[in-house]
Amino acid sequence: MDDDTQKINMKALAKALNLSTATISKALRDSYDISEATKIKVREAAERLNYVANAYASGLRSHQSNTIAIVIPEIADSFFSQAINGIESVAGNKKYHALIYLTHDSYEREAAILNEFTSGRVDGLLMSVASSTLDTAHIGKLQKAGIPIVFFDRDCRQIPTASVTTDDFNSAYNATCHLIKQGCKNISLITVQGHVSIFLARKDGFRRALEAGGITPLPSNFVYCPNKYSDESIKLIGNHLNEVQPDGLLLTVEHLSTAAYLAAEEVKLSIPNDIKIVCFTNQITAPVLNPSLTTVQQPAFAMGQKAAELLFEYLSHKYIQLEKEHLVLPSMLVVRGSTSPTSDNKKLTQL
Amino acid sequence: MDDDTQKINMKALAKALNLSTATISKALRDSYDISEATKIKVREAAERLNYVANAYASGLRSHQSNTIAIVIPEIADSFFSQAINGIESVAGNKKYHALIYLTHDSYEREAAILNEFTSGRVDGLLMSVASSTLDTAHIGKLQKAGIPIVFFDRDCRQIPTASVTTDDFNSAYNATCHLIKQGCKNISLITVQGHVSIFLARKDGFRRALEAGGITPLPSNFVYCPNKYSDESIKLIGNHLNEVQPDGLLLTVEHLSTAAYLAAEEVKLSIPNDIKIVCFTNQITAPVLNPSLTTVQQPAFAMGQKAAELLFEYLSHKYIQLEKEHLVLPSMLVVRGSTSPTSDNKKLTQL
Repeated sequence: MDDDTQKINMKALAKALNLSTATISKALRDSYDISEATKIKVREAAERLNYVANAYASGLRSHQSNTIAIVIPEIADSFFSQAINGIESVAGNKKYHALIYLTHDSYEREAAILNEFTSGRVDGLLMSVASSTLDTAHIGKLQKAGIPIVFFDRDCRQIPTASVTTDDFNSAYNATCHLIKQGCKNISLITVQGHVSIFLARKDGFRRALEAGGITPLPSNFVYCPNKYSDESIKLIGNHLNEVQPDGLLLTVEHLSTAAYLAAEEVKLSIPNDIKIVCFTNQITAPVLNPSLTTVQQPAFAMGQKAAELLFEYLSHKYIQLEKEHLVLPSMLVVRGSTSPTSDNKKLTQL
Repeated sequence: MDDDTQKINMKALAKALNLSTATISKALRDSYDISEATKIKVREAAERLNYVANAYASGLRSHQSNTIAIVIPEIADSFFSQAINGIESVAGNKKYHALIYLTHDSYEREAAILNEFTSGRVDGLLMSVASSTLDTAHIGKLQKAGIPIVFFDRDCRQIPTASVTTDDFNSAYNATCHLIKQGCKNISLITVQGHVSIFLARKDGFRRALEAGGITPLPSNFVYCPNKYSDESIKLIGNHLNEVQPDGLLLTVEHLSTAAYLAAEEVKLSIPNDIKIVCFTNQITAPVLNPSLTTVQQPAFAMGQKAAELLFEYLSHKYIQLEKEHLVLPSMLVVRGSTSPTSDNKKLTQL
């Protein structure tokens, strides 16, 4: 048992097989110099004898870490957890590790993480940019160091590389048109602070849909909340509901749905009778909220999957030009109770 | 600009400062041989000149990766995302990377991940065991290889090391007593498949509370769902509601709350009039569900924080005996609408 769990090094493996360490090393690296029969023999013995390569030493030799990094703002969001599952569904098959790094939406953290990668810790990067990132030199620097990058969801136009996004402009446009169609006349956008591509696109889509509907949004129709779920968001939205008295809200981030529901409850507004709500979110709880929540549902799993496929295609063949790959997958408006003409309760009362 | 983003190596740093590479290397490793003044000079120049250590080379020299691993079953669960924030609040201060590895509750994945670590990829491990893990040899092997491990939430009694858990037995006991007090007489436990410490403790607490209340649970009062949110869970719970007709449910995992609400809706049972529900979850949506959800709320952030503190204490001083550290932090029952004597709707109808 103890022998079994002992790890052995390349020298011991060479001795056990009566081969040179050079042969063992080449066989394990799948070198053309070594016959298939020898490779099989070496691999079998390596497994049987519990051979473990020193990650650092083998990294130095092969210049490969067999590791990719997923750099995302946060994980307390269904979108990212579903996207990670999509990425892992690909990475797992390729025998790669996918390591998750969280920026907590901070530019400083993102820059520090990417700076680490220039030392060769990872072979490639799947990234969703932090909302506080304006200066993108840290991303450009990593790209110059030869580390391929694929953006997913939140991309960065200044960096010429692949991106997998969803149609944020159209989604916000359609969601806003839906609110107008349901009778809303004073609609506000509740979003988060930051400079991220997706938030700008959603804001644009919102604004253009209002204009198309003959509504001119006022500066007071735009509310900027913190990037994390917090009491401050509930307060900000509550104050907005009191002061601006909107009859419709488009929320751009998952955690704003809970904040908006609690704010509406606090100021005694009924959803959807007094105010209708649509939120960009993939939360599984959307159908069981009070009332059930109309959502813009994003293809999170597929986006992660596609981004990983692009990166691995590049890592394995290098015949694709990453800067020419820009996939845009459609999102879907799922209409539920929070934008109904009348609530179920109201209906019951009317019966 | 280009010069600025160029990385320089130790040799260039030595040349710039007119010092030997040995001195630079020692200064960067904070060696006793080097004066404080020289260390400051070297560090400043390193920063100014954008010196980047080769992760592999420096790892080989110092036998330190400045990296800890967080090995968890999944991230689509508020408990784990909050625990990770707790861990990172400590790791960030210590200038350590905290890398997140997901086992997806699979023993095979967990074993493969831990096997990688024996090669020195990480300095320590914070771990929540997969629900399918029965054989713990992979954990014992890593411990023998000298990598310290601290369990949080889901621990593993066979491995003598530190653990930070919450009082799962008492929490389930109290939640079940609450259901009995609210009038439930036929209470079922909806849980997930697997062998994890916490699920066994919750099952025990549930069973003992029923016995204390003079109720004998039948085998049919125990339902085992998949470990991920799925339509199968909704179906399993729906069938159970039809066949066993329980008037109370204790759910042991977050994603079961959405499944149970949808199942109740499908079989046309009203929560809390026909059936009352308590769930172990930290989901922020609990107060805005229809009806708001009574929860066992766990000290997720604090658990992550404490586990990280223990690991770093060990890594920096080694004067603590990990196997003697077992922290148990209390959870809290938060009573909401899903266990009310009558629902708000009912009240409205009665007025």
